[in-house]
Amino acid sequence: MRRLLIASAAGPELSAAAVAAWAQAGVELVDGGELFADDDDTGERSAAGRAARGGEPMLLVLPPGGARASAALARGFADFGVEIAGLVLTGGADAAAVERLAGMPVVRDLDDVARLHALAAAPAKRGEVYLVGAGPGAPDLLTLRAVKLIRRADVALFDRLARSPVMDLIPAHAERIYVGKRPGAHALTQVQISALMVKLAQEGKRVLRLKGGDPFLFGRGGEEAEALAEAGVPFEVCPGVTAASGAAASALIPLTHRDHSQACVFVTGQGKDGPSGLDWPALIRANQTVAIYMGLAQLDALMAEFVAHGAPPDTPAAIVDNATRIHERVIVGTIASLGAAAAAAALKGPAIVFIGSVATLRAKLLAEAG
Amino acid sequence: MRRLLIASAAGPELSAAAVAAWAQAGVELVDGGELFADDDDTGERSAAGRAARGGEPMLLVLPPGGARASAALARGFADFGVEIAGLVLTGGADAAAVERLAGMPVVRDLDDVARLHALAAAPAKRGEVYLVGAGPGAPDLLTLRAVKLIRRADVALFDRLARSPVMDLIPAHAERIYVGKRPGAHALTQVQISALMVKLAQEGKRVLRLKGGDPFLFGRGGEEAEALAEAGVPFEVCPGVTAASGAAASALIPLTHRDHSQACVFVTGQGKDGPSGLDWPALIRANQTVAIYMGLAQLDALMAEFVAHGAPPDTPAAIVDNATRIHERVIVGTIASLGAAAAAAALKGPAIVFIGSVATLRAKLLAEAG
Repeated sequence: MRRLLIASAAGPELSAAAVAAWAQAGVELVDGGELFADDDDTGERSAAGRAARGGEPMLLVLPPGGARASAALARGFADFGVEIAGLVLTGGADAAAVERLAGMPVVRDLDDVARLHALAAAPAKRGEVYLVGAGPGAPDLLTLRAVKLIRRADVALFDRLARSPVMDLIPAHAERIYVGKRPGAHALTQVQISALMVKLAQEGKRVLRLKGGDPFLFGRGGEEAEALAEAGVPFEVCPGVTAASGAAASALIPLTHRDHSQACVFVTGQGKDGPSGLDWPALIRANQTVAIYMGLAQLDALMAEFVAHGAPPDTPAAIVDNATRIHERVIVGTIASLGAAAAAAALKGPAIVFIGSVATLRAKLLAEAG
Repeated sequence: MRRLLIASAAGPELSAAAVAAWAQAGVELVDGGELFADDDDTGERSAAGRAARGGEPMLLVLPPGGARASAALARGFADFGVEIAGLVLTGGADAAAVERLAGMPVVRDLDDVARLHALAAAPAKRGEVYLVGAGPGAPDLLTLRAVKLIRRADVALFDRLARSPVMDLIPAHAERIYVGKRPGAHALTQVQISALMVKLAQEGKRVLRLKGGDPFLFGRGGEEAEALAEAGVPFEVCPGVTAASGAAASALIPLTHRDHSQACVFVTGQGKDGPSGLDWPALIRANQTVAIYMGLAQLDALMAEFVAHGAPPDTPAAIVDNATRIHERVIVGTIASLGAAAAAAALKGPAIVFIGSVATLRAKLLAEAG
């Protein structure tokens, strides 16, 4: 039997008899405030808060309120990383409605020791992997589902996001494993990363694999999902706002527009054969936008290939560096001018390159954007 | 001067002298619980809750707690639609840290009537438009930013999302305007929709334009942004998870994969010239995934064009109907078989069609997905 903590969100009056009955059921009472209390200097959290974030299941005692408000409050605790075994209502809200809205079991009567026993006996969590798209960079461009999965993690594998504020959402108790390239050390290969995820999940852990953008668009999420499936590890794929969408919205360059572009093609500038390995006849088309991921390192070569394959040198082009982040920079030019302009600006990436006449819309839209 | 409400989230002890001073500053005390109280039968909310959701600014009195927890709680209230003019700390948290983390002004001393006056005198909001991508369908695939902007709306314009749970996030006080097609009534034209947004914003309203997927990828967001810029109306574009990313993650069909596809092209099946107007030589390429938005209505014609332009009839293809929603259905086949299979399944859309060998990965990945 698991230990059940009871966290009171609003200090209802609880009978001594009930507390005694809980003790027999393996239930312990903590104050709701203790879940949130932390010390600003040391970052130390209360024992109750650590236990909650460590995945110990809680019964959450809710203050009186309507069904919607009760469910919203419960989900708020869950989003904060608290594993909720069940909800205890102290007001007159409809228990069935709260159960449905919150997606959590409801206990109406705290003296119902049999129900408490049943909740405490719920099966232990299984190991699984979340392949989560973290979006283009700005932390508020995470999806609600991504936040939920991040907060559920026991261990997080990450690479390019190492310095992102998104990392702050990973629970304090979770192990963090950097799997990217770093000075003086070899990066893990894709096979090693997949093997590590499998191993951690087989230990019963909830493994977060955090990826920039969308995991199934240049994120190698497909290969990782394949490795997990081969090993029989349960996994979930959480889509994200892909970098091109984030850069387009932030730089005010629509990817499609009826007067400019009826299609958008997404390619990577870091393919195994480099720029010359791209399918150039497919990229040089009228009425189409090309979005090049990871295009900065090979920018001159990419632009030269466009010209070599027949694109007019004055084809509009733009580069969005650090899209949606505080240090975002946007340069608009042509395929002839973009390389020199990006070099002069000393862009460092990550960057998305857009090719097509939609790039000219930025100047018009920028004047009024809030 | 605006009326300021003070909402206490946790009932600290407040002095009678302070309450009297607030009254002179136009400040009124309400209980935090009143913001959330609602009646489950009638949906009626408390007067305080209605005022809060109606955009009346609040000073929020926080319970004792650390800076991170205080900021998280304040943001929770803001996400619930409460306009917060400032935070009042009752515990020992670092005010500067809370101000930074929450992005809201902090009042340390409730007797600081001058500061209360300043907060109440903050400038009135200006009219503006939010072009918000609502993502592929599942409400938890909204971004945090989208939720924030939706909850800020005075008026919401929507079309295809009419029956989506996303609509529940629009504040109760906000006007809802359906601008799509409906039986027996003409839909507004794109020009009329843009004109309506301009008019509402010029009246000082915060106008939400809610769009499925991403507003700059087949969302006509570019044209709407152009109209707003021409009229001098401030606007913001909030990117979303595009339908293809949502469908790919949900149906376990990676858009790119090193063994299958190094590029992905996004087109719409509802272009002005129909399927024959698409740039077919660009779509029929090796090592590329094609994602066709709004592809269901013309599915047979689209598949016939693929074959007519030289794609092998056994090219893998899939259709994802109602992606990420409860009623999602996925059919995998070939470009020769997909049309009949979709008809037999009586799919109703919205649907995304994928063409390319990545469609074969679904069967392998499906066995283990959670």
